[in-house]
This record gives sequence, structure tokens and C-alpha cells, in this order.
Amino acid sequence: MNPDITRERQNATFDVEKLTHILNGGPEKTKRRREIESLVFSDPDFNEEDPNFLSRSERYDQAVKKSAQMILKLREYGIADPDEIYYYKNMVNGNQHEAMGLHFVMFLPTLYSQCDPQQSRKWIPLAESFQAVGTYAQTEMGHGTHLRGLETTATYDPATQEFVLNSPTVSSIKWWPGGLGKTSNHAIVLAQLYTRGNCHGLHAFIVPIRDMDTHVPLPGIVVGDIGPKFGFSEVDNGFLKLENVRIPRDNMLMKYAKVEPDGTYLKPPSAKLTYGTMVFIRSMIVGESARALSKSCTIAIRYSSVRHQSEIRPGEPEPQILDYQTQQYKLFPLLAMAYAFTFVGQYMSQTYHRITGDINQGDFSELPELHALSAGLKAFTTWATNSAIEVCRMSCGGHGYSRSSALPDIYVNFTPTCTYEGENTVMMLQTARFLVKSYRQAKAGQQLSGIVSYLNEPKHQRVQPQPVAARPTVVDLNDLASLVEVYKQRAATLVDLAAKSIQQELQLRKSQEDAWNNSAVDLVRATDAHCHYVVVKLFTDKLGEVGDTAIHSVMSTLALLYALNGIKNNSGDFLQAGLLNVPQVLQVSVRVKELLSQLRPNAVALVDAFDHHDKKLNSVLGRYDGNVYENLFEWARRSPLNSTEVHESFHKYLKPLRAKL
Amino acid sequence: MNPDITRERQNATFDVEKLTHILNGGPEKTKRRREIESLVFSDPDFNEEDPNFLSRSERYDQAVKKSAQMILKLREYGIADPDEIYYYKNMVNGNQHEAMGLHFVMFLPTLYSQCDPQQSRKWIPLAESFQAVGTYAQTEMGHGTHLRGLETTATYDPATQEFVLNSPTVSSIKWWPGGLGKTSNHAIVLAQLYTRGNCHGLHAFIVPIRDMDTHVPLPGIVVGDIGPKFGFSEVDNGFLKLENVRIPRDNMLMKYAKVEPDGTYLKPPSAKLTYGTMVFIRSMIVGESARALSKSCTIAIRYSSVRHQSEIRPGEPEPQILDYQTQQYKLFPLLAMAYAFTFVGQYMSQTYHRITGDINQGDFSELPELHALSAGLKAFTTWATNSAIEVCRMSCGGHGYSRSSALPDIYVNFTPTCTYEGENTVMMLQTARFLVKSYRQAKAGQQLSGIVSYLNEPKHQRVQPQPVAARPTVVDLNDLASLVEVYKQRAATLVDLAAKSIQQELQLRKSQEDAWNNSAVDLVRATDAHCHYVVVKLFTDKLGEVGDTAIHSVMSTLALLYALNGIKNNSGDFLQAGLLNVPQVLQVSVRVKELLSQLRPNAVALVDAFDHHDKKLNSVLGRYDGNVYENLFEWARRSPLNSTEVHESFHKYLKPLRAKL
Repeated sequence: MNPDITRERQNATFDVEKLTHILNGGPEKTKRRREIESLVFSDPDFNEEDPNFLSRSERYDQAVKKSAQMILKLREYGIADPDEIYYYKNMVNGNQHEAMGLHFVMFLPTLYSQCDPQQSRKWIPLAESFQAVGTYAQTEMGHGTHLRGLETTATYDPATQEFVLNSPTVSSIKWWPGGLGKTSNHAIVLAQLYTRGNCHGLHAFIVPIRDMDTHVPLPGIVVGDIGPKFGFSEVDNGFLKLENVRIPRDNMLMKYAKVEPDGTYLKPPSAKLTYGTMVFIRSMIVGESARALSKSCTIAIRYSSVRHQSEIRPGEPEPQILDYQTQQYKLFPLLAMAYAFTFVGQYMSQTYHRITGDINQGDFSELPELHALSAGLKAFTTWATNSAIEVCRMSCGGHGYSRSSALPDIYVNFTPTCTYEGENTVMMLQTARFLVKSYRQAKAGQQLSGIVSYLNEPKHQRVQPQPVAARPTVVDLNDLASLVEVYKQRAATLVDLAAKSIQQELQLRKSQEDAWNNSAVDLVRATDAHCHYVVVKLFTDKLGEVGDTAIHSVMSTLALLYALNGIKNNSGDFLQAGLLNVPQVLQVSVRVKELLSQLRPNAVALVDAFDHHDKKLNSVLGRYDGNVYENLFEWARRSPLNSTEVHESFHKYLKPLRAKL
Repeated sequence: MNPDITRERQNATFDVEKLTHILNGGPEKTKRRREIESLVFSDPDFNEEDPNFLSRSERYDQAVKKSAQMILKLREYGIADPDEIYYYKNMVNGNQHEAMGLHFVMFLPTLYSQCDPQQSRKWIPLAESFQAVGTYAQTEMGHGTHLRGLETTATYDPATQEFVLNSPTVSSIKWWPGGLGKTSNHAIVLAQLYTRGNCHGLHAFIVPIRDMDTHVPLPGIVVGDIGPKFGFSEVDNGFLKLENVRIPRDNMLMKYAKVEPDGTYLKPPSAKLTYGTMVFIRSMIVGESARALSKSCTIAIRYSSVRHQSEIRPGEPEPQILDYQTQQYKLFPLLAMAYAFTFVGQYMSQTYHRITGDINQGDFSELPELHALSAGLKAFTTWATNSAIEVCRMSCGGHGYSRSSALPDIYVNFTPTCTYEGENTVMMLQTARFLVKSYRQAKAGQQLSGIVSYLNEPKHQRVQPQPVAARPTVVDLNDLASLVEVYKQRAATLVDLAAKSIQQELQLRKSQEDAWNNSAVDLVRATDAHCHYVVVKLFTDKLGEVGDTAIHSVMSTLALLYALNGIKNNSGDFLQAGLLNVPQVLQVSVRVKELLSQLRPNAVALVDAFDHHDKKLNSVLGRYDGNVYENLFEWARRSPLNSTEVHESFHKYLKPLRAKL
């Protein structure tokens, strides 16, 4: 154990284990998670080479092998609880993705939810026994978030009682679905349904794409891998071009909409049912943000505690780089954010399950708010995390660039969350639509409920320009409740500003749509302020649940840092709205610096509490024992370019070059 | 040619070719650059597979091959001018780095500048004929920016007239030098010189590391590749562990410092001489920022002009995504920044050459300012570009993640500039040191010259809290000179604030060093504001040189957008300092939106003017002809996972899995 990191742990003012329990939801949950994780790191079948040393094909091969092993082992151990499966897979996959992920998260769930009883009897056993390995093919080369634009067609032919599927253009080729390229022999294809000459919009069809025995692509199917990407190297995201592919009528998923043998189309009873899945996945992504960020902070903070560099005081030994204020300022606000997002993720998951209960009882009333919240928070947390991972990486100096640090892997495998499951800007605007609608309802005298009820509160002198310092202020910068209040008022101000921008555009005789587009920058900013308010509020709310005094104290410091640093970075908004005056804003900067030194002794303990096992982190810089340098050397020596002492290029190019000059 | 992109070009209000000449420094230079570039893309020897399809070893192999070919061809064509070599290599390397880069940028220049005459006669012919292929080994595993901490030792043994080199600890292993792992047979090693029992600090030694004939590592040399990284996959960044390696006395570079046969140490006459190289490289990096950013903008803006998605007005065809205000707001400020940084890069290069002339005549007076400016601007431009590339990538939706977009390559190969040649935060603090020193001189009544002379100007009511709107204001938001003025005053305010923070810490009886560290966050912020001012000023200055009315008009719009968007993003600073009032800040947001629509018709033309050839961009999304989708499909089909229809993992794992369940 590195003595620096040991000393850091001795200096902590709270019980790390207790905080881990809070993060996990209780000591029993921590215990069970660790039991499951230990199944992985004691299992020699999962001793593998660093995927960064492998070619793309080898990486994919290794990932398929792991997928198959996990299936067998989870059944062997009898692990069936979704959380427990998640713990297990997370530990096996480390910082990489699962090759067969889409089979589990999209193919099977779609079969469960959209097959009629007869279809269930046929397809679910096939899928559960991996005779049918599948994916979900929605996105096309030319269309992502905007589903109505999808071009793939499924035309019903009553003569043979078949659907004929086609990719009518290059841009209609299915593109991006995970596992589509090489792994799957079936795909659920989203296509525009045509029957009796009418288009009925998008529907889902089960399309066999490869022979179940030989795995060779079927006639009319052009399928393959879309090529290397930024991350997701283990996953064969694929393309699928359909050329007059015929499938039986009952390969259309018919739990809701139906096509009868004669081609008659029967509409689904309600459109709201698919809504829930998106909300669920977006809520989950908030939690993923927290996990990626807490991993990154763990690596950067542990490394900063064992790395010594340069000097603060001449003549003294080189300090730990965590002693530099600039390093603390890079990392501690991100650490605070990691805690904030963890609690927001817990809240989203709980809220989702609560509202799902209501929905099952026919109560859809809270769904629009949850939908808006999950869209905005998905974008807010993934964008913030995306930048934060890179700040963590760059805070590790040169070694952060090494694949051994794991930070490049964490980044490239996280960054797609900004785009998939709803492109972030589109998400921000969806939330903005809900905010503006609520704002208008409030203006019309309607009483709002839930998290937007602040739009009912008496209007502050929001947009009216006015002397900033002239307004008496009651904000206590050390009181979280007071800070929640200013964040709320900032959000109200920016929603008001965006709504006014739309109004002004309309007065210039712009259409509703153009007025919206011409205000989009303000709308995104309003959503951002709304989400920021929600995060500060949820972090503050969480503190009320923390009984342990020592933990409550350090969590309060983190929450204060999160809130005050957010004010510092957006001080213009708070000044502009007259919520803070200039001396207060100057005071915020001073307080932020004080909070950095206050957190310094607990930094390593706070990342330890996330309890990311070394095997899961897979980072030489983030090792629990802090023994970085020896292991960096050892890792490098295993790297593939070192398999021979002299690379063949010397004999091929360098030596001959001399003769040619 | 895609009709959308053709229409975009027709809508431009200025002559693209003329703007290209401005960027290149005249029509003759454009012509010569294109001539040189055409040598590459008409050369079948440089037709190669996308490196993203290759394994690490294959990538390295291909890169060494290209390095060797370039050497031969440049000699064949008689290209010897540094700019022209740069054009040629840039075109060959595309978005990747040169395997043998360090031989040219560090090994040879160090020999030229630090060999004594006798050493020159021996080593320069060896290096120029590539008998000796070399690198520059400074950074160690445990030490980067802080040179005094380097641990490698070179101990003089008068008995044999040799130096004995050692890596006394794991952390002293040389780590990161490009070309060290596999390519080089020599390294210039920086080591602490010991002779006659005294340490004389860092000196440079030529160390043979591999047999010149067989390329096998020499006795006592442990050398290899440091393993895969985030980017630089073509380069064998290496490690070097020295175990009692003996080299002759005259392998120490002795132009300045010397060790005599008996071990007597002779000091170098001046330390300032090495200063210049760092300044040069940092100045160059500013230009690299502009190039990486202009490439990224080219890709994102061209793609946004051919990508159609979603709807603004119901019933109408899907608009080009460049018509969304949010998309414009992501990209146009970055386009403005690309132009700004291009002009700053030109200024830095000119200033460097001017000051080098002075230095050669013994006038060092401007060196400290240039040193401070290059450090700060290196950090300011690389950080901004680093984030900007990722914004460009993410603005391309899913396809931005594909390696075919080139944006991942541009990012990973650019991001190390934030760390190498001086870690950015350290650079910001170096500039801050100069600013605080200048500030104190100004306070002491000294008249400053150069770019910091604003610190002499009468102090505005900078830090004193005061009602924002109470101050009469003369800022004209449409006048660049007026905006340069407010940026200047913002910088002055923040330098003042940082200096006051140090003062306050000193009053709390902190040492100078602790006071500095406890103000580091404010110091970085002051440098940031200073650099921002310099960039706005240089962009504005450049407009004075533009004679063409149409180009002047669009450049002014860009400069205004750059300046106003910077105010928008930092509005708190301007409000706090009383430089703008609230109505003005609101007006800034409105003006930014207006400027976005104003730039819309010229966006594609403005990226065309950078004149990045398709071969150099190597981006399916950024193609000049806009034919994205067909080429995306074609690229994917060539990808290595598609070399067989059925991947072996099916037979190895997936099919057997069924039987095991």
C-alpha cells in the first residue's frame, strides 16, 4: 500500500463504509453486491487480456465469449434479480460494453411487451434459449431521433399473407443497432406499414436475418458491421439493407395494432404505452452518468494523492498534486457532482417505479412531468458528465492519455449517451416544451403541481433590467435551502425569458414554429436552469435522510460546493435576475475556495465510498493501493508492440532507407 | 455534387478564393500549397487503407513506411522550405501523426543547436542519413512539466572518461518520448549530471540505445513501447530504463556546458538560450489549434448542410439541420473561433520571428512578454479547441461517433496539446506570474509597454461592489473597438482581483508561496480573461488589413459573434465589474441570435475558405461534394469485421451455447 494513500485514509473524518451503505441503499445491499462481484473476480474464466491490447476482431471475439459465459454462469448461480444481474455484468464488463447487450435490453423486452399470446409461445422460448439472438433495428442512416422520418417499408401482400420489407433508399439502410452486424440472427425492424394502399406509420416486425443453423445471411438481407467507432469496440453495431424480404403476416408484433389476413388494419388502443420504456431508459442513463463520473473521480483523486510534482514551497519535498488549489478546483466540484447525480439517479429510479405503479392502475397524470424530467435530466447529466470525465483525464497529466488509466475507455464508452435514446438538444427542447406549456397554464391562472409549481409563484422582477444591488437580498450563502430558492428563481426567470422571446417573435408575425425555433437557444438555457435547480434541490433533500453526523457534515459541504460552484459558473444569470448582488457573487468565489480546502482531507475517502473494485475500474492510476508506477511499467511491457524486440518495419523500411539516400 | 451543398455555395455573399488567399498569406502561397498538396494525392504510394481498420502494429508499420517514403520523395522533389515540408507532411499524415516526427522536430534540431563543432561533424551526417534515428528523452514516469524533479543520472567516470547513465528508480524511467519505443536507435537523454561528487543539474547526452545494424537493444538498455493511448496510435511513444549504461565523454552535448576529461565542469554562459525553443513550439501550437478547429468546423458545417432531420414547420420537408437555431449556436461561435485562432496563430508566428531577430542582435527585452503570451495562449486556445472539437462531433449526431467522420481521430490526436509542451494549468499560472508582476510594477508607478500596458490605465471601479446600472455606460455592442475595450477592462479587473487575493492571504500571515497557491483559481481566471482580450483584439486588428468589402463584412460579423458570445458566456464578469448593465447583457443574447441568422448563408463558404482537401480531412461527413450516405455505406463495407460473412465467434461460442442450456 502506498503510504500517501494510507495517510489520506487515516485523515478522513467519517466512516467510509457507512457512506457506502447510504449509496447502495443499506448494508444488506452492499453485502449482496460484494458477494456477487466476488463471484467474478474469483472466476478464472474472466481472467483476460486488456482489450486495449487486442484488434477489433479479437475484442469482439472476447466479448462474445464473455456474453456466452455470463449467460451460463448467471443460470448456474441462479441470479435472476435485475439489480443483481446488473452488478454481475457490470463487474464482468468493466469499462466496456456487452456484445449481446441489445438481446437483453431491447429484443427480449420488446417480445415480452409486444407479442400477442400466440407469438409469445413461439418467440420467447426461441429467444430465451438463444436459438434466436436478436436486436432492435430502428435508427436508419438518414434518421435517428425523428422517428416519423424513417423510410423502411413493410408492405402487406394478402396473396401470400406476407409482409414485404424494403430499404427503398441508401439513407433508409438500418444503421447503428448494437449486435446487428455479426451477432444477431433476428432483428425487430421498425418499418412504415403499408396495407391496402395506405400507410399506417411505424410498426415492429420480427425479421429473420441469418440462417439459424449456419448463421449465413438470408436472401435479400445485406447485413454487416458499420465499422470502427469512438468506443463500443466490443459491439458490432450493424447495418441492414432489406431487398424484398418476405416474412409471414404473424411476424408483425400484434399485441396492440394488427393486420388481418385480408389486409385490414386494426389500430392500437393507446399510444401512451411505448412512452414508458423511453422514460425508463432515460432515467437509467442519469444513474449511468453518476457511475461513469464516480469512476472517473475515483481514478483522478486517488492518482492525485500519490502523484508528487513541482513545488509549492521551495526546498520542501514535491507536494501531492492534490494539494494544488487548481487541482482541487478541477476535481472537487466534479466529486460533488458525482454525489449529486447519484442521488438524482436514485430519485429518478424511485419515481419511475412509483409512477409505473400508478400507470398500471390507469393513472397517467404524472407521466408528462416524468417524461419531461427524464428527458431534461438525461441531457443535463450526460453533458455535464461527458465534460467532467475529460477534466478528470486531463487532471492526470500525461498518464491520463494512456489507455492504462481507463479514462479514455470510460469516456468513449460513455459519450454516446449524449446522443442515443434521444439526442440531448432535442431532449432539452422537449423539456422546454413542457416548461413553456406549464408557464402558460400558470399565467392563465391554473394551479400547477409537482416540480414546476414554482411557475405559479409571484413573479419576481425577473427580466426587467434593474440595478442589481438595489434589491434587498435575504440569500444566506451558507444555507442550502436559501440556495435552492435562488436556483428556483433563476429557473423561473429563464423560463420567463424564453417564453417572452417566443412572444416577441410572434409579434413580428412569425409562425408559432419559427418563433419556437428562433427562441431555441433561450429554451435550452431555461431547461438547463430548471434541471440545475432540480439537482440542487434533490441533493439538499437527500441530506435530510442522512442521520450520521460526520457523514451529514461532509455531504453538506459537497452540496454547498455543488450549489455555489454552479452559481460561480453562471453568475451572470443570478446578477441579471437580481437574485444576488455583486458582493455576494464575490463572496461565492471566496467560499468555493474555502470549501475546497475543507474537503481536501476527505477527498480519497469520498471516492473510496463509491466502492468501485479495482477489477471494475481496471485503471492503473486508480488502483486502491496507490502503487501506480510499478504497475504502469508492468502494463506497458505486456503491450503488443513489445511482443518482439525489433519490429518488422525496421527491416522493411528503415534499414533499406539508408541505402536509397 | 449534393444539391443542398451546391445551393449553399451559390448563396455565399463573398469570394471564397479571396478569403483563402487571406488565410494563406497571398495568392502565390495558396498556389504553391496546392501544388505541393497535389503531389500527394496524385501519388499512388500514398493510397492506403484507413488506419482505423488496422491493428496497432499494422498502423505503426504503415506510418513508418510513410515516414520513409516522405523522406525519399521530399528529396526527390527538392522540397526544403519548412512551410512547404509542413504542407507536404500534413497532407500525407491526414489526421494522424508521423511515426518519425521526433527525429525531425527534436533530435535533429537539438543536434544542430547543442553540438560543438566536433560533435556536429560526427552526429549530423549520421542523423541526416538516418543511420542514427533519434528522439528526445526528457519526460520520466514520475516527472513531466517540472524539470528539476527529473531523476535520471549521468555520473562522470574520469578513469574511463565515460558517463554512466542510470534510472535509479521506477519513476525515473523515461516515459512518453515519441519514437523511443521501437523506431529510434539513439536518444538524447536529459539527465542530472554528476561529476566530482557534485550535481550540476540537467544536461543532454546522446545515448545509443539499439545496435545500428541489427536494431537490437544494447546492453543495459531496457526499451519498449508504453502501450496503447488515446490517439497517437501511429507513434511508438516509449520507455527507456538505463542500467549502468556507459557512453564516451564526448556524447554529452557540449556547445554550452562542458565536462573536461578530468571531470571539471564548465558552466554554460547563459540559460536564456533554451527558452526560445519552448516559446516557438507553444506559438506553433496556437496555429495547430486553429487547424484542428477549422477541420472540425468544416466537417460539422458541411454535414449539417446536407443532413435533413425532423421538422420546423409541420407539413414541410425536413429542414437541413443547419437551419436549427440550436445547431447554429453550437457551430457558428466555433467557426468564429477558428478564424480568431487562425489570426492569432499568424500573429504569434510573426511575433516570434520578429523577436527572434531582436534576440539574435542581443535584445532580449520582449522575450518575457512573448514567453508569457505563448504560454497563456497555448493553454487558452488548446482548451477551447479541445472542447470545440467534441461539440462539432456531437453536433453530427450518431454519425459523429463513427471513425469515418474523422472527428474522433482529430480529437484524440489533438487533445494531448493540452498537456504536452507545458501542462495547461501550469502555463496559465506562468502567464499569471507575468501579469501579477506587471500589475505590481504598474502599481509602483512603472510605465509598462506591450500588451499589458492596460494595467497602467486608471483603475476603474473594478472590484468595489456597486450598483451595476448606476454607472453610465458608453459601450456600443455593435462596435468592435468598444468591445475590445470592455474585454481589456475585464482583464484588468480580474488581474486586480487575483492580486488582491494574494494580498489578503499574505495579511493572514501566509507565506508568499501559500498565498500564491491559495489564489491559484483566481490567477488562472485572470490569465483566461487576459488571453480572451488578446484574441478579441487581434481578431479586430486583423479586420483592418482586409480590403475586400464583402469579406470585411462577413469577417466583422464573425468577430462580433466571437466577442459577444464570449460576453454572453461570461456575463457575470462584465456585470460584476460594472462594465455592462443588465439591459446590455440581455441585448447581447438577442444580438448573438441575430448574428447566427446573419451568418447562416455564408456558413459553408466560410469553411470552404479554409481549403482543407478531402484527402487531408479524410472524413465521410465532411466531403466537399456532400455525398455522405453512399460513402458511409461504402466505407463500412470495407471495415475489417466484414471480411467474412460469419465471424468465427458464432461457431466458437454462440452455437455451442444453445447446447449447454
